[in-house]
Amino acid sequence: MAVHHFQPEQFHNTIGAHEPVLKIADGDTVVTSTVDARGWDNQGESAALPSNPMTGPFYVEGAQPGDTLAVRLESMVPSRAWGWTSNVLAPNVVDPKAAAALPPLEIIRWSVDSEQAWVALEQPTPGLAGLKLEARPFLGCFGVAPPKDQAISTVTSGEYGGNMDYKGLVAGVTVYFPVFSEGALFFLGDGHAVQGCGEIVGTGVEISLDVRFTVRLLKGKKIGWPRGESDTHWFCIGNARPLDQALQHATTEMLSLLTKDFGLTASEASLLLGQAVEYEVANVFNPAYSVVCKVPKAVLSML
Amino acid sequence: MAVHHFQPEQFHNTIGAHEPVLKIADGDTVVTSTVDARGWDNQGESAALPSNPMTGPFYVEGAQPGDTLAVRLESMVPSRAWGWTSNVLAPNVVDPKAAAALPPLEIIRWSVDSEQAWVALEQPTPGLAGLKLEARPFLGCFGVAPPKDQAISTVTSGEYGGNMDYKGLVAGVTVYFPVFSEGALFFLGDGHAVQGCGEIVGTGVEISLDVRFTVRLLKGKKIGWPRGESDTHWFCIGNARPLDQALQHATTEMLSLLTKDFGLTASEASLLLGQAVEYEVANVFNPAYSVVCKVPKAVLSML
Amino acid sequence: MAVHHFQPEQFHNTIGAHEPVLKIADGDTVVTSTVDARGWDNQGESAALPSNPMTGPFYVEGAQPGDTLAVRLESMVPSRAWGWTSNVLAPNVVDPKAAAALPPLEIIRWSVDSEQAWVALEQPTPGLAGLKLEARPFLGCFGVAPPKDQAISTVTSGEYGGNMDYKGLVAGVTVYFPVFSEGALFFLGDGHAVQGCGEIVGTGVEISLDVRFTVRLLKGKKIGWPRGESDTHWFCIGNARPLDQALQHATTEMLSLLTKDFGLTASEASLLLGQAVEYEVANVFNPAYSVVCKVPKAVLSML
Amino acid sequence: MAVHHFQPEQFHNTIGAHEPVLKIADGDTVVTSTVDARGWDNQGESAALPSNPMTGPFYVEGAQPGDTLAVRLESMVPSRAWGWTSNVLAPNVVDPKAAAALPPLEIIRWSVDSEQAWVALEQPTPGLAGLKLEARPFLGCFGVAPPKDQAISTVTSGEYGGNMDYKGLVAGVTVYFPVFSEGALFFLGDGHAVQGCGEIVGTGVEISLDVRFTVRLLKGKKIGWPRGESDTHWFCIGNARPLDQALQHATTEMLSLLTKDFGLTASEASLLLGQAVEYEVANVFNPAYSVVCKVPKAVLSML
Repeated sequence: MAVHHFQPEQFHNTIGAHEPVLKIADGDTVVTSTVDARGWDNQGESAALPSNPMTGPFYVEGAQPGDTLAVRLESMVPSRAWGWTSNVLAPNVVDPKAAAALPPLEIIRWSVDSEQAWVALEQPTPGLAGLKLEARPFLGCFGVAPPKDQAISTVTSGEYGGNMDYKGLVAGVTVYFPVFSEGALFFLGDGHAVQGCGEIVGTGVEISLDVRFTVRLLKGKKIGWPRGESDTHWFCIGNARPLDQALQHATTEMLSLLTKDFGLTASEASLLLGQAVEYEVANVFNPAYSVVCKVPKAVLSML
Repeated sequence: MAVHHFQPEQFHNTIGAHEPVLKIADGDTVVTSTVDARGWDNQGESAALPSNPMTGPFYVEGAQPGDTLAVRLESMVPSRAWGWTSNVLAPNVVDPKAAAALPPLEIIRWSVDSEQAWVALEQPTPGLAGLKLEARPFLGCFGVAPPKDQAISTVTSGEYGGNMDYKGLVAGVTVYFPVFSEGALFFLGDGHAVQGCGEIVGTGVEISLDVRFTVRLLKGKKIGWPRGESDTHWFCIGNARPLDQALQHATTEMLSLLTKDFGLTASEASLLLGQAVEYEVANVFNPAYSVVCKVPKAVLSML
Repeated sequence: MAVHHFQPEQFHNTIGAHEPVLKIADGDTVVTSTVDARGWDNQGESAALPSNPMTGPFYVEGAQPGDTLAVRLESMVPSRAWGWTSNVLAPNVVDPKAAAALPPLEIIRWSVDSEQAWVALEQPTPGLAGLKLEARPFLGCFGVAPPKDQAISTVTSGEYGGNMDYKGLVAGVTVYFPVFSEGALFFLGDGHAVQGCGEIVGTGVEISLDVRFTVRLLKGKKIGWPRGESDTHWFCIGNARPLDQALQHATTEMLSLLTKDFGLTASEASLLLGQAVEYEVANVFNPAYSVVCKVPKAVLSML
Repeated sequence: MAVHHFQPEQFHNTIGAHEPVLKIADGDTVVTSTVDARGWDNQGESAALPSNPMTGPFYVEGAQPGDTLAVRLESMVPSRAWGWTSNVLAPNVVDPKAAAALPPLEIIRWSVDSEQAWVALEQPTPGLAGLKLEARPFLGCFGVAPPKDQAISTVTSGEYGGNMDYKGLVAGVTVYFPVFSEGALFFLGDGHAVQGCGEIVGTGVEISLDVRFTVRLLKGKKIGWPRGESDTHWFCIGNARPLDQALQHATTEMLSLLTKDFGLTASEASLLLGQAVEYEVANVFNPAYSVVCKVPKAVLSML
């Protein structure tokens, strides 16, 4: 149950079988930091190449393909006082005819106050003069080495996690990843101070983070897609294009969770999901979109 | 500001230019009832043909193409003590390989207690013995006559509304429809006592309803897709397949709402949406899927 | 086996249960004409409203829901010497980022020589100075009244046919439609002198046509989607969005054709299709896209 | 202009920055062989791991990111007398409701006669007794190392090529790939003796091949997606899900080819494509689908 402090100096733009930066054990905690999506660090200096440079990988002793790695996100705190976003909707989230009328892309800076937990535009335009959003920092891109010794760009995602940009993955949540390689090889980066559903301007408020997480190894526990547990929900994440397929992956994984972990029949799981399921569109911007299938713990606790 | 009491005897399985059942004026309230998706009434008797027989149409005096019809849903109360659902996920919401393993379709009855506001299985299986969900009644299918004198089946939806199956359209919400024909011709039906996101078993808890609604006519106000306003959100609904296109419609309409109604520039609207938008998957079962693009009023009130 | 000459004076912009213009019998031939997609006739005069005004409907004596109507396209001859197209790719057929760079929409006229069977730009630009394409006239939109007494806009399509814009439906081809209403109610219009796959500029070379067709009624023969037979192929057409679903409909119908009409097992049909199937993208522009699943008669004749 | 004979002993299941097996020069020809999709060689022995083990990579001297590598497929000849396929349609190519009724998956052997150029079932069932298809051998999976030092599984494809399963890539065709890494790093494998459009049973007639190809380096020529040239057509391949996006990539690349290489304006290219484009569905089975956008040389030669 050691606590490791790790300060990254090199970063990876693919998730794959890279040389581990640290070996950790089941139950260990890591205190580390991430640079932002462009590789800018807590001083605003360029420390790595875009896009989405990763801290890691962390090698978890004993992890083997077919296991599950649980990562509890203890805390994610912005390590500087500003972030940045794009100012324009991605052309794929509006009607094709409307895409031509979108304004040119600019990068806009936001102030981030981590103590008071808000973000606001550094130079608000008249229309947005009073806008102040609650900060909800999370990691946009994290996961384990993918199957078959692939090394996959951190702009996309898959069953191994990756660039899911799901705003629900905040402090206190535990995320479960299927393990595909020895040591699991956990990567993390691409912090956001806040983000709406779908990452529809192609960014959250992009920022460097100080991160604390704890790993737990579930030997012989086999899952198909990333799962998660918050105070209020169990959820499953599907990553694919189009949204329809991402939703299929997430729902299929939830069906598996309810039947294998909660002991329901497929019919019981269907009855439950039909009347109680929730979906979130995590990202509809990256090469693979992400859809989250959620069930309230309040409902599951009745069973 | 009259209050009309209308008891339907005939029902329509298309939304189109049918003979009005009642002419009402801007500001009027209607108290009426709907049968369920199969045409079963408050006695459980077959009163109309499936699927989704509609009460109406109500002709709103003075409504012309290019106007907007606002419908405030005053109340929707189940008019019998039971509803029904399917017991199996729709094959299109799971991975194609998983679809073959789904159980055979059965119709399952649920008890509905409108006073205590809950629903539960009439004959719970062991795995679901304790399941009791909060009732949240809403209309699955309602809207106005579509453009170009079409008459369109009530199993699908479009810019005129229709079978959107959005669980957020509960009592207290106002829905706005673009008017395409003289009198607008408002239809309603397909009540659900509760439903999860997506209507992924192909049904909510299907039930007959007593409904009270008030219409308001916005002369010369032109919108592209159904919009809505709840206590907490403004939202826009896009109806199409696949989900990606439904989301494009909803987002394009929200961009229009923020720029035309709230006076933001496209860039300001993008900055706001990027960090504050929410999406809901209303239905991922019908021929046209429905996606809802939402913005919290708490955010809009800062502007 | 009568031959009817019918000159249309009124046109419909929906396909539905409209008053028949003529009652014809199984085996009869009709000689008629169609105006173009904008309603312009053989003199270039506006004779009907856009989009895709239909000639018809023709009532086929004895046709009942559950039958199949076979329509042999005897001839389709342009009735004027020019057609028109758009000059720009539809924004939905290029990458969303590329859509913004497309040129503004203009309507361009083409010369059509039906005797020599070619089309060419009336005013060719330097880059297209020598362009001369073989004329291959066909009907973009035709079909029978849809199920459930719907009246559906002629800009879209479904299991009843409609605006499929499939360039393979040339003279000599027989098209089979499922019958959904008494008399079948056959409509036709939206002639094209030529068109590429997909109708990706949103138009073929739009033109008025003189059309001759013969109907045959297949009592009790039930099909799910339009089918066709040319000299070289059997084919099935699926209409839906996205392309994936249109392809699913077309392939499912072909599986039905091979198993029910050709007596193959599902496994035999799969073996055959896997190594011999052909697909065409008929349209990727209209609200419903159209995909054609084809099998060469040369292959079927071996069985 | 050397001719290299290379007999592979090791194979790769990802396309990436692997150690080159041979360095070749612009203009050189390689004579080599490939094992089948399961790793079975010309003796039917297991020589490599599934799926789609690759021969290579071949390092092309002087190739740099931003160049284009042209690969002329001189010949692809089956190196054994039998291949294999699946016997059942992939569940994603039929309607979700129809997927459940598909037969169980079996592997079926086909006889392949390369001299007479036909394939036929080894043990034909009654319904397919006479079936004999023309052999048209091609490589299902080939391409260059992907961008950003990724190593990507050979079951999928991208702008670097990969598992496109396009039946049009037969002997005589030249394929052009964008170069993303030093030496380009060309891989090849996954031979098919024949295949229908879409690879809709998940396989062609899978077979080991003897392959002869010649490379040419186009320094400073930048393309976005694989292009190709046959005797009759220029074409561009887009790889993505869903089909709609694959078609967008292919069409966007063709627009680029016509404007940059053939000197047309975007409007001229649109006019040409609108009335003369052809599409092929190369694969609708792999994680990324492949759509081909084609223009006849007969049309281009008029310009």
